[in-house]
Amino acid sequence: MTATLHDRIAASFDRQPMMATLGASLVSVEPGRVRVRAPILPGARQQHGVAHAALAFAIGDTAAGYSALTMLEADDEVMTAEIKINLLAPGRGDYLRATGRVLKPGRRLLVVSAEVHAIAEASETLIAVLQGTMVPVPATR
Amino acid sequence: MTATLHDRIAASFDRQPMMATLGASLVSVEPGRVRVRAPILPGARQQHGVAHAALAFAIGDTAAGYSALTMLEADDEVMTAEIKINLLAPGRGDYLRATGRVLKPGRRLLVVSAEVHAIAEASETLIAVLQGTMVPVPATR
Amino acid sequence: MTATLHDRIAASFDRQPMMATLGASLVSVEPGRVRVRAPILPGARQQHGVAHAALAFAIGDTAAGYSALTMLEADDEVMTAEIKINLLAPGRGDYLRATGRVLKPGRRLLVVSAEVHAIAEASETLIAVLQGTMVPVPATR
Amino acid sequence: MTATLHDRIAASFDRQPMMATLGASLVSVEPGRVRVRAPILPGARQQHGVAHAALAFAIGDTAAGYSALTMLEADDEVMTAEIKINLLAPGRGDYLRATGRVLKPGRRLLVVSAEVHAIAEASETLIAVLQGTMVPVPATR
Repeated sequence: MTATLHDRIAASFDRQPMMATLGASLVSVEPGRVRVRAPILPGARQQHGVAHAALAFAIGDTAAGYSALTMLEADDEVMTAEIKINLLAPGRGDYLRATGRVLKPGRRLLVVSAEVHAIAEASETLIAVLQGTMVPVPATR
Repeated sequence: MTATLHDRIAASFDRQPMMATLGASLVSVEPGRVRVRAPILPGARQQHGVAHAALAFAIGDTAAGYSALTMLEADDEVMTAEIKINLLAPGRGDYLRATGRVLKPGRRLLVVSAEVHAIAEASETLIAVLQGTMVPVPATR
Repeated sequence: MTATLHDRIAASFDRQPMMATLGASLVSVEPGRVRVRAPILPGARQQHGVAHAALAFAIGDTAAGYSALTMLEADDEVMTAEIKINLLAPGRGDYLRATGRVLKPGRRLLVVSAEVHAIAEASETLIAVLQGTMVPVPATR
Repeated sequence: MTATLHDRIAASFDRQPMMATLGASLVSVEPGRVRVRAPILPGARQQHGVAHAALAFAIGDTAAGYSALTMLEADDEVMTAEIKINLLAPGRGDYLRATGRVLKPGRRLLVVSAEVHAIAEASETLIAVLQGTMVPVPATR
């Protein structure tokens, strides 16, 4: 069943061209918890050579959204209603990894969070935390 | 003098590879108000074919950050301490345009906002609002 | 009709004991825009003698929530799903006044904002801005 | 030393009249983690008889702020720069308890979070989560 859950999330993830543009990939899928990672590509940096805030946002928002999706029916999608990011440290290292979690499931709204770490050979640094709200959207067929 | 201000912001903008990746450009620079636009490139979409939330975030955060930078000394840079985005409508149309504004300047913190509109031939739709905090960073040379 | 709208909001406002505790009152009600004010009572201050952040929050959230309620059917109520406050200046003066506005109405969610000013004899100072999400709740009878 | 830390935080807490108005008290103080509780007084409710969002905000913000203060020099104070609250469930029960934590200490900014639970005889319910930024303020003497 977790395999099916993974497949469902992966199928949606693969339909998001922005994830391909950023080189992001799905790391793991569990009920209420999803991990996404992305390299710090040259084209995803800001003027000081570290990860652009939008890269941390993109994978944090995506991990949080998919953690919400794991709590929903197979045909649903989710949309971000709102999300806030606090940036804690520069995004520097081999890659960024976002861990999304569901804080409160719900039929109309799901409250989610995400932590984004910068991963280097010998260290993991928490660089951003996100807190937001996801809205279920019935799949359009 | 506004020309100089524009040049200073443009020079910083042009050093952000993420802006080039997204095809974003600087539209206008005034003291306390900066506009940035970006096409909705195929590679910047989500699974329903509209702009990814991260695109609205990227240009909203950038416009807000540069609006803060217009209030600072020539050598300073700014970093986003935190920013929140509420998504109001799908990002569909010819391009997105973000208008960043300074709500409260300050020596240690600047409070900023941004509105993101989706622009189509005959319409402008407000698709996102952002509210955040920028921190001045002395330029490193 | 605006009189009826005012009466409906006032009736709900008067059922909130927290508003009485803070000495808050409803100033004006228009479709999509509600004003609430509160004195800076000795019991609503923090350790430096200025308004506690929770006072600015309380009236900002309330003004924003009632601005949402003006867009709904007569029997509905609203609840705050989430709201963020940026504090810009100390709350000092004769009283605080919050102006709530609807940025985006909706059947499932309403995006709202509020500005809180500190009013003194000769000045108005913007001391806080809020941005949030309200959820309609069918009245329970 | 933790006793001294507790005394320092308690002395500041006791100078906040808003905390007395809400009947709030300091539960525990550890480095980077502070707990505050408050009864759901009749005067701190909203129109449906449950805790007003401003009560959850007040103790969540206060617990988060004091968790930041535990990381600073003895003479400092902190101010809330911004904080966001997501409300998860109605605040009903015997009392509310907020647990504030420091996510990232810093000289200029501290990123903090808080969880607010409603406590009843046989249950604890997470009713709100907060994420914010505190700014150190040198004590005025």
